[in-house]
Amino acid sequence: MAEPIDFYFDFSSPYGYFMAEKIDALAAAHGRAVRWRPFLLGAVYKQTGGGPMLAAELKGPYAYRDFDRTARFLGLPWTVPAVFPIGTQVAARTFYWLDERDPALARRFAQDVYRAYFAEGRDISQETLVLDIAAAAGADRAALAGALAGEAVRQRLKDECAQAIAHGVFGSPFVFVDGEPFWGVDRIPQIERWLETGGF
Amino acid sequence: MAEPIDFYFDFSSPYGYFMAEKIDALAAAHGRAVRWRPFLLGAVYKQTGGGPMLAAELKGPYAYRDFDRTARFLGLPWTVPAVFPIGTQVAARTFYWLDERDPALARRFAQDVYRAYFAEGRDISQETLVLDIAAAAGADRAALAGALAGEAVRQRLKDECAQAIAHGVFGSPFVFVDGEPFWGVDRIPQIERWLETGGF
Repeated sequence: MAEPIDFYFDFSSPYGYFMAEKIDALAAAHGRAVRWRPFLLGAVYKQTGGGPMLAAELKGPYAYRDFDRTARFLGLPWTVPAVFPIGTQVAARTFYWLDERDPALARRFAQDVYRAYFAEGRDISQETLVLDIAAAAGADRAALAGALAGEAVRQRLKDECAQAIAHGVFGSPFVFVDGEPFWGVDRIPQIERWLETGGF
Repeated sequence: MAEPIDFYFDFSSPYGYFMAEKIDALAAAHGRAVRWRPFLLGAVYKQTGGGPMLAAELKGPYAYRDFDRTARFLGLPWTVPAVFPIGTQVAARTFYWLDERDPALARRFAQDVYRAYFAEGRDISQETLVLDIAAAAGADRAALAGALAGEAVRQRLKDECAQAIAHGVFGSPFVFVDGEPFWGVDRIPQIERWLETGGF
């Protein structure tokens, strides 16, 4: 079987959410698995000096319009959450803790977090909600809560962010197919052709 | 007949060039004409504080890779010009001077300028080359040279840039279909569906 696709995303990224709803089926259609890799855009921006487009004078209003339209274009549920953007450390730390124990569970958790945030508008920065979502997906809530109070999950996420930056990730979503980097959900047509043809 | 599509672009924008090669056929397939509207990204960045992604630490190398790949994806000739990005005032002023006299000629000139720059790598900031391209497209070279030495073409371009910004243009290419704004050549699939359905 061919190499898995790497899918980097921040839980606070609308285009990351859209990609999360599409990437597994897209990969499966070409016999590929997907490695889900949440990271913190804040860590990237700190290093690269970038920033979200939301605050920009003309880009900001356009961005909200493009979120809405792209959700309709892709046929996905969508709402602008009351708190947006949001801190996603707890969700990302939880993902890696789950991923070490049960990758399929971690994958379900990630999609559930995205849907709670961008389809239902819930505050996924809250540890209680993250624990609820993880427990509903099948995680051991008490063990997870204990882990979130410790240092190991913090360090793991730091390492993952550093690794993402080392790979050249500077935005969300970011997808690698056999080393080829694709930034943005709007690169889906190019990713499809790449998977079909083995590169073009 | 339905309203023309507005197509804003900077002659130094690779994605603007890609769109220039696609937009007329796309529009014609849905019974639409296109109003070509060059502007200066520099004027936009001065007002909005944005900037090109080329200098950014991780984005820069990705951008060059994406230019190449997107050109292959769209089946278009492409080279990174020796001087890039470049000043496009002379080309843009020439466009509007031609447009006042012969819109079809101005449209041909615009495509020829883009191809000279991004397919052949020639220095389109040079007035001599711009005059050559305009003359080859059918313009009165001497009259154009005289006009380029005057103030009117400068003021016209300033007005067009101000108008573009007033319409919300912050990048290149920027397309409006019945008032709906689309930024980037990667929005072609959404533009197509918008034209097919009358909005979604």
